[in-house]
Formats: sequence, structure tokens, C-alpha cells
Amino acid sequence: MDSRTGLPVVGMVGAGQLARMTHQAAIALGQSLRVLALNPDDGAAMVAADVQIGDHTDLSALKAFAKGCDVVTFDHEHVPEAHIRALAADGHRVYPSADALVYAQDKRRMREKLAELGAPVPRWVPVASAGDLAAFGERVGWPLVLKAARGGYDGRGVWLVADPAAAAPVLGSGAELIAEERVPLRRELAVQVARSPFGQVAAYPVVETVQRDGICVEVLAPAPALPEELAVEAQKLAIDLATALDVVGMLAVELFETPGGLVVNELAMRPHNSGHWTIEGARTSQFEQHLRAVLDYPMGDTALTAPVVVMANVLGGPPGGMSTDERLHHLFAEDPGARVHLYGKQSRPGRKIGHVTVLGDDLESVRARAVRAAWWLREGAL
Amino acid sequence: MDSRTGLPVVGMVGAGQLARMTHQAAIALGQSLRVLALNPDDGAAMVAADVQIGDHTDLSALKAFAKGCDVVTFDHEHVPEAHIRALAADGHRVYPSADALVYAQDKRRMREKLAELGAPVPRWVPVASAGDLAAFGERVGWPLVLKAARGGYDGRGVWLVADPAAAAPVLGSGAELIAEERVPLRRELAVQVARSPFGQVAAYPVVETVQRDGICVEVLAPAPALPEELAVEAQKLAIDLATALDVVGMLAVELFETPGGLVVNELAMRPHNSGHWTIEGARTSQFEQHLRAVLDYPMGDTALTAPVVVMANVLGGPPGGMSTDERLHHLFAEDPGARVHLYGKQSRPGRKIGHVTVLGDDLESVRARAVRAAWWLREGAL
Repeated sequence: MDSRTGLPVVGMVGAGQLARMTHQAAIALGQSLRVLALNPDDGAAMVAADVQIGDHTDLSALKAFAKGCDVVTFDHEHVPEAHIRALAADGHRVYPSADALVYAQDKRRMREKLAELGAPVPRWVPVASAGDLAAFGERVGWPLVLKAARGGYDGRGVWLVADPAAAAPVLGSGAELIAEERVPLRRELAVQVARSPFGQVAAYPVVETVQRDGICVEVLAPAPALPEELAVEAQKLAIDLATALDVVGMLAVELFETPGGLVVNELAMRPHNSGHWTIEGARTSQFEQHLRAVLDYPMGDTALTAPVVVMANVLGGPPGGMSTDERLHHLFAEDPGARVHLYGKQSRPGRKIGHVTVLGDDLESVRARAVRAAWWLREGAL
Repeated sequence: MDSRTGLPVVGMVGAGQLARMTHQAAIALGQSLRVLALNPDDGAAMVAADVQIGDHTDLSALKAFAKGCDVVTFDHEHVPEAHIRALAADGHRVYPSADALVYAQDKRRMREKLAELGAPVPRWVPVASAGDLAAFGERVGWPLVLKAARGGYDGRGVWLVADPAAAAPVLGSGAELIAEERVPLRRELAVQVARSPFGQVAAYPVVETVQRDGICVEVLAPAPALPEELAVEAQKLAIDLATALDVVGMLAVELFETPGGLVVNELAMRPHNSGHWTIEGARTSQFEQHLRAVLDYPMGDTALTAPVVVMANVLGGPPGGMSTDERLHHLFAEDPGARVHLYGKQSRPGRKIGHVTVLGDDLESVRARAVRAAWWLREGAL
């Protein structure tokens, strides 16, 4: 509890853009997000008042950070499970709990658990050897997908392999791997839900996510032309998973839409890139919702604020050219309605450095505006 | 320029709720607002990373603060004119300039200037003596309005006086005063515009402001049943004033709607309470717009995001009762769509400690929800 305001202190481990945007939401709720940052120049550390510098793999740093927090939560999945358990054993409220978070940290355990729950998953196996993989390839066909069980993000740790020879270098890396069949996907969908310790769950409209090179580049809300029964099925699936896994906070369920129905791809238990559109596009943003969930406040309204919302990620472009400040000038002149979010990150090719959201009535024009704005911020050229 | 991001540093003198909400907007633009706070517990100082503690009447504190800022701007009107001129003389960009801001700082000079510009104003006189006031009362009738030329806000420094005897204590206070006729007002309106150094001006829809005891308690956007020609006249008036006074940043023009037309009541040259509804209710909030204006970025879209937007201020209520945190729980359970903004301020009866915004289609129900939510946060009872 912050003695100055009588309002809770939420601590977020990690100080990237998710913490940065969560801090914006915390301010409205009368709070100030406490962040544990690796570096003073991390996106959230540059804007928050209550910053501790420390490594999320250092238990003593985590313990010092948790002291005085009403709740500890996460900007990423990289805090070791044992450390999360140690914080909880010290009496700290930590959401999501280690028991839940492990299913977002470890793809093998996620797949096992989802199969056990009867959720739709691709055919998969743990892979310990070339023999395992060959047998699995025999069964489901090539190409197939190899995934590192832990530590991947934005396409890292995921390999589409055409044949056993192509898989050899990955198998030789020493990482714990699983293999999945390559599902015949029509497109990718995502659904966000928030769940509180009380057990209330609020679901956002289902969105379509567009990936390029394994990185999400666009999110279309609501998912265009999604049959109502599929939307309800996706929301129900996410609600059921949040409940079964005892998730507290935001849960993002990434889905494949296939001719045979929905298949779960990944889980994230935090605000997620596929939910950035909610800042302007939903009555309650996923960042405020995450805070409300971990604080056991009742959930906010998840309704759309416009018929069509499109979010486009701004990736780092080629070095040189116009400054970011100049690019902003031009973008604002070109499109006064584009909503820009920059993360304070150094630009590197392909790195997510911000996003743009556009709202409107017509998917084609809204999407074109969002994509054009993001491209402009990336390239400084059209 | 922030060397870490290549983006500008805006410094805001004063660290109240306006700076607090401007910081939220700055974060999206990749920036971190620098604030000059009287105390570390000021609303914005509790949430911003870049805080200097100092008094806005201390020129050396202002000079130290301005160093490294690309632009200096204001959370309030209390910085002495001479200090603003001194900063500008040192080469700092200060928006609004002293030449403009004086018309928001000094009601006498504002009235003189507006009269000179031919803007509609009530009949008024400077008052140096009881004789001046008696003569003015003879001319316009009693009751009339006495105003301190400087330093008033939220109803302070404004007195409705029934007769010369009632005016005596105010006259004896030694403050520089003006007297104004009491205009037969139908209601109060306000219009926000933003103007950049380049000269671009963007106007928001005209709103109705509802006052109680001289304090704004509700803002209805757009102003209900306002004839289109009056709305256009109000926007044009605000645009013309921003241009004529060379305002840079937000300008709020508070208006009386009278049977004889519009009359200018007050000017504010900063984000203003009558524009808080824009956070969710307009495509670009007044806080982002103020930043865009002082940075000479092109202005953002000012369109409404819903047919009806109502903002209700949360005033401090009687001491005791439920904690703010408990009140939030109940409010969120009661109305999942209410958008809450708390300022991190200690509650004192009548003090603005936050606001609530509700969006929708029907004025009556939207207004009832906003008023009910604000009342609940104030009283902890309905």
C-alpha cells in the first residue's frame, strides 16, 4: 500500500514496453507502477518514478523488489520458476502464480497440460533425438515445426524444418525441443481474457494476428468475417483455460484457424502484443485490465470502441535516414488520426520499437492507414 | 533532446494532475515529461521519472529546470511573468510565451485585450475603490461579480456581491479587483483549441460545463442541443483568440451562453478541466495535443469517439468511511464501463482528487452513470 495515497503498489518484474504501458494505466488508477529493470534505459525505467535496477534471475534482487509491493507480476516469462515459488513462500502475492506461469514458460508442459484438458492442439512430441524426430515426421509428414521448450519469442526458438537434415543443427543445439505437425492454417487468431483471484473472467473480442517472419506485424480487431460460433468457441476456450490453469491477470491465447477448427498455438500470461489495440480500441485496455485482475478488482468493460481497430507494429528499420522526431512530424501531418505508441527503445532492424493504432468503420482503409503509418515510422520512406 | 531516444524533452512547471496526465500522453510519444514539483508527493512527481523539486517562483530553480528541455510549458498560471521572460531571454523555448500567458494570468488585462479585439465580454470595470464599484453598480445593477485580477481558481477569487455592503470585505482585502455585470446566463460552455508555433489550430467540439459553488462538476460533450451556428461561432472565437493572442499549446475558452449570445468568461492556456473528457472521448486527448502543439508537431484529430461523453469531477468528501481502494472495488463492480482517473492527491472536502468519464449514446443515462460514479468515489455512499 502506498502510504501517500492509500492505494496499492503493483510491482512488475521487467521494464519493457509492457511495463511502460502498464504504468500509463496505473497512473489513471491513482497508482505508480514499481518496475524491476535490468537497465536505467529500459523503456519503462525511463518513464516510471519507482524503479529498482536488478536482474530478474537474481533472487535477492527479486526479494528486495517485492518488499512493499501488494502484488508482484511480470512483463515477461523469464523469471525462474523456483524464484517465483520463493517469493510466494515469503508471503508475497505473485500473479500469475508459478503453477500457472509454467504453462507459458515451458511449451512442453503447456502441450501436455492442454492435451490433458482436452483443448485442441496440433499433434506433437517431445524430441530428445534424431530418431524421435524421424519417427514423428514419419507419422505427421514433413515439413514440421521444431520449438525450443523454453525462452523463445517473436519467432526465435521456432524452426520450420523441411526434412531430417534441416533439423540436424537445431537438434545439435542442446536445447530441449518439441516437434509439432505443421497445421494447415487459414490464419492466426488471438483472444485475450483477464481473470481475477476471485475467479471473474472477462474476454475481449477475438482478433486476427498477421505474422511476418514469425513476428506479429498487424492485429485486426475484431477478426474479420469470423463466424460468431467460432468467436464464441475461442472466447470460451480462453475462459476455460484461464480457469483450469488458475491464471490471474491477462491470458493471451494464440490460435490457428484451420479447416478442422481452432488449434491452440501459444499462451502468454501478461499483457500481450496481440492486445495493444485495446488501448484505444476497447473500453478498458489490457494494461488496466491486468492491473485490475492482479488486484482482484472487478473487470472492466471489454467492448470495442469502434467497428474496426487495426494495430500495426513499428519494427526497427535500416539505420540512418530521418530522425524518429522528423518521422513523427511527417506522420502526424499525413494522418492526424493515427495513434502512436513509441517504447523508448533503441532501433535495431526487426525490433519492435512501437506500434500504431487506427480506428474507423472500414477495414480496408483503416488497415491501409495503420500499415502505412507503421511502415513510415520504420523506413522514413513510403 | 533525450540522447537515449532522440526525442524531445518537454518540461512542465508544476506537478499537479495536469502534469500527471500530460506525462501519460508523453509516454506514448516516446517521451518522458520532466516536471518541476514543489513536493515529491505532488501528483505528477509520484509517477514521473524526471522530477526536479523547486519553487516556480524561484528563478534559479526555473533556470536549472529549463536546462536540457526542448520546450518549457506550464501546469498552472502561477509562474511570474518576469521569470518567463527571463527564461525566454536565456534562449529557452517557453510556450505559451509571457506575452500570451499574461491574458490567462491577469483578468484585468484579459478583459482589456478581449475588448480591444472586439470579443464578446460582459460589461466590466477595474475597481480601485468603493466609489468605482458603486458607480458601476449604478450602471449595470446589483448583484454583480467581483474578481481578483490574479491568482483565483475553482471559484476562489470570485465573489457574487448583492450590494455595496457585501462588497466591503472584498474591497478591503487589498487585492487588485475588477467588477463585472452578472450576465443572464443560460448555461456555461467551453471550447478547447490547440495552436502550434507554425500557426496550425485544431478545435475540439464545444462542451457544456456544469458548475457548483464555482467548481466545475460535470462536462457534457458535445454541449447538448447547441445550435450548429453557435457551436461554430464558439470554435471560431477560440481559434481567433488563440491566433490573436499568439497562444502556443492548449487554450480553453470558458463561455457564458446568454439570451444575447456568447460571452467570454475566462481563458486558460494549458490543458484544462473542461477538456479531461478528451482522454477517452476524443481521438486525440488535450494532453497529447498540448505536447504536439508546444513541440510544433501537426495537430491530432479532435473528433469525438462516441455520440455522448460525460466527465464528472471527483471532489474530496467527508473524512473517514471506506478507503479509496474499497470505493474503487465497488465502483468497478457497479459500472465496468466507468473510466476512472485518480490524481494521487490527499482528499480534502471540495478538492478535485480525480474524475470519471463515461461514453455512450444516450445523454441521460451516460450523465447519470458519470455523476453516480463520481459521487460514490466522493462519499463512499449513494
